[in-house]
Amino acid sequence: MPQSRRRFLGLAAGVGAAATAPFLWRERALASDEPTQRRLGFALVGLGQLSEGQLAPAFRNTRYCRLAGLVSGHPDKARQWAQKYGVPEKSVYGYDTFDRIQDDPSVDVVYVVLPNSMHAEFTIRAARAGKHVLCEKPMAITVKECDEMIAACRAANRQLAIGYRLHFEPFNLEMARLAHEKTLGEVKVIEASAGFRIGDPAQWRLDKALSGGGSLVDIGIYALQAARQIAGAEPVSVTAEATVTEPAKFRGIDESVLFDLKFPNGVVASCLSTYAANVTRHFAGAERGSFELSPGLYYHGIRGHVTEANGPTREMTFPDIDQFAAEMDAFARCILDGRPTSVPGEEGRRDVRIIAAIYEAAASGRAVAL
Amino acid sequence: MPQSRRRFLGLAAGVGAAATAPFLWRERALASDEPTQRRLGFALVGLGQLSEGQLAPAFRNTRYCRLAGLVSGHPDKARQWAQKYGVPEKSVYGYDTFDRIQDDPSVDVVYVVLPNSMHAEFTIRAARAGKHVLCEKPMAITVKECDEMIAACRAANRQLAIGYRLHFEPFNLEMARLAHEKTLGEVKVIEASAGFRIGDPAQWRLDKALSGGGSLVDIGIYALQAARQIAGAEPVSVTAEATVTEPAKFRGIDESVLFDLKFPNGVVASCLSTYAANVTRHFAGAERGSFELSPGLYYHGIRGHVTEANGPTREMTFPDIDQFAAEMDAFARCILDGRPTSVPGEEGRRDVRIIAAIYEAAASGRAVAL
Repeated sequence: MPQSRRRFLGLAAGVGAAATAPFLWRERALASDEPTQRRLGFALVGLGQLSEGQLAPAFRNTRYCRLAGLVSGHPDKARQWAQKYGVPEKSVYGYDTFDRIQDDPSVDVVYVVLPNSMHAEFTIRAARAGKHVLCEKPMAITVKECDEMIAACRAANRQLAIGYRLHFEPFNLEMARLAHEKTLGEVKVIEASAGFRIGDPAQWRLDKALSGGGSLVDIGIYALQAARQIAGAEPVSVTAEATVTEPAKFRGIDESVLFDLKFPNGVVASCLSTYAANVTRHFAGAERGSFELSPGLYYHGIRGHVTEANGPTREMTFPDIDQFAAEMDAFARCILDGRPTSVPGEEGRRDVRIIAAIYEAAASGRAVAL
Repeated sequence: MPQSRRRFLGLAAGVGAAATAPFLWRERALASDEPTQRRLGFALVGLGQLSEGQLAPAFRNTRYCRLAGLVSGHPDKARQWAQKYGVPEKSVYGYDTFDRIQDDPSVDVVYVVLPNSMHAEFTIRAARAGKHVLCEKPMAITVKECDEMIAACRAANRQLAIGYRLHFEPFNLEMARLAHEKTLGEVKVIEASAGFRIGDPAQWRLDKALSGGGSLVDIGIYALQAARQIAGAEPVSVTAEATVTEPAKFRGIDESVLFDLKFPNGVVASCLSTYAANVTRHFAGAERGSFELSPGLYYHGIRGHVTEANGPTREMTFPDIDQFAAEMDAFARCILDGRPTSVPGEEGRRDVRIIAAIYEAAASGRAVAL
């Protein structure tokens, strides 16, 4: 029986929505000594599974954000949401009326949660309307679109952040810390796997015109992110193999992609992206031991351990946070403080560029320099 | 502090030599109803760490084998061993006197445990002396050598087996069974990693003239084996990246190799071989769940689990056997019963051929067809 993306990412570890979960980012925020500030108004553009299951519920776990606007292609759905979440009718938009959001002072940030092919258009329109933009990953389908999005936000003097929730997740942050501080010596090899068995064959993720790619752009991007985060460097070359075992389901898009990254310091990363099976693991092999997350990218229930060579294995212990609340609060804090986001459009563009190189390597059977 | 190969493979899971460990192969053998037969005499050629730490002690866990001969380049060492293991002086040989073993009826099987570059020579000399041959992996350094070894054994009407101990190890057998019986549906993606942080820089494994390669021929071959076993098929193409981060230690050989295999049924395997860090894991992602060994190739302490999609994870429970005893008994049984070994020279040759293609892919940056 196929398993839905939401079910896998959200529930596979047996943990449901964690409204009461400890919330590291909030703790960090509270630890600072500034006075309480106003909450920034966020408008969600696209009311699909992610908005419904994760984002809308996450606002109650934020300190600096509130749900202030809704943008949908389905007016009935938008009205229902407005009622449920107390969003005033004047802040509910269709795709056609979206540009009027420039006159809506209750909305500070537009969060683009649309199919990938629509990210560029709505990011650019939001920037032109004078809003900051938080855009889901992958940032866009092409590097050219990324450039246009960055330029539009810069021209409007608005911030652009990409929805890399794991940049604010404590287990994932610990992996990067252990690597960069060389706690177990230099990291030598990295393995990163991200995949789930995709369900409904009619969903937009399997429609190349909307998704721009297969498993790699949607879930494999997490393996790419993990490898880059642990390496603390940018890859200089990539080799790849793409495959499809169910051609009726995967038309013109990849089902699985294996890609291997080489970093300038000689570190290598072996990565797997797949829509064919459930797998999520980040592993770093270092001189004096290894450290690993498995599962590494679920919304909840991430687990990790550190193994010393000739020594013990210890579990990592961190709170199971609301990653989307952390992501939104982090962006709101940057806007409120006038600081640049740590996950800007330039970071999203790096992944889009590498993904294009991975597809090129898979298609050509040749290593592609970056 | 660098960790020795023996220490990592043998003790990393905290389990010591298991003279009294349950022994699956013996149980299988006892379940058959044939009468007790004589033990075949094995001569060990090469008295290094593997012979000392694993093979010589393993004979007491066999049912069909006994240590009957010793071949060493170090006469003093050979004499000490002869005394310790009760091997008569007439069955102790040097490399120069080895061919006289043809007149030694107490030796039925020659077990070649020499550096890789010497496998072909001693296999061929053993066959010409009328002995069956068990040869450690990798079978040889080149496919041409493999062909010569196979031809020599065939001409002598003797059997040739390769020392693939994991073909007789119950957790590894279970991985293949789960895959081939499609217990969780079709396997779609495979991950296999094999590596340890190599110690003593003066050892023969780091001397290309003796080893014929780096981590790939020595430990990465286990990842290749795991991928082929789980896929139940032969790869049709390979891409690879090789890397060295410590050039003073790895001269002309690989430190790490990432290689990706594509199988004819569309299944792909993402594999890692390394001398830079400790890692050993075999993973299969299937339609309705996944199954995994970690660690997957230690001499003792292998662990595995099966995870059903939307369901529970269960630990695999199998006895922790003496893998070398199982391997030797299996070969002895084939010889006694007049049946062909399940791990013949042809199986060893397949790996040597694929390894050559992996090195070619890494050197050229191109996919290599097999």
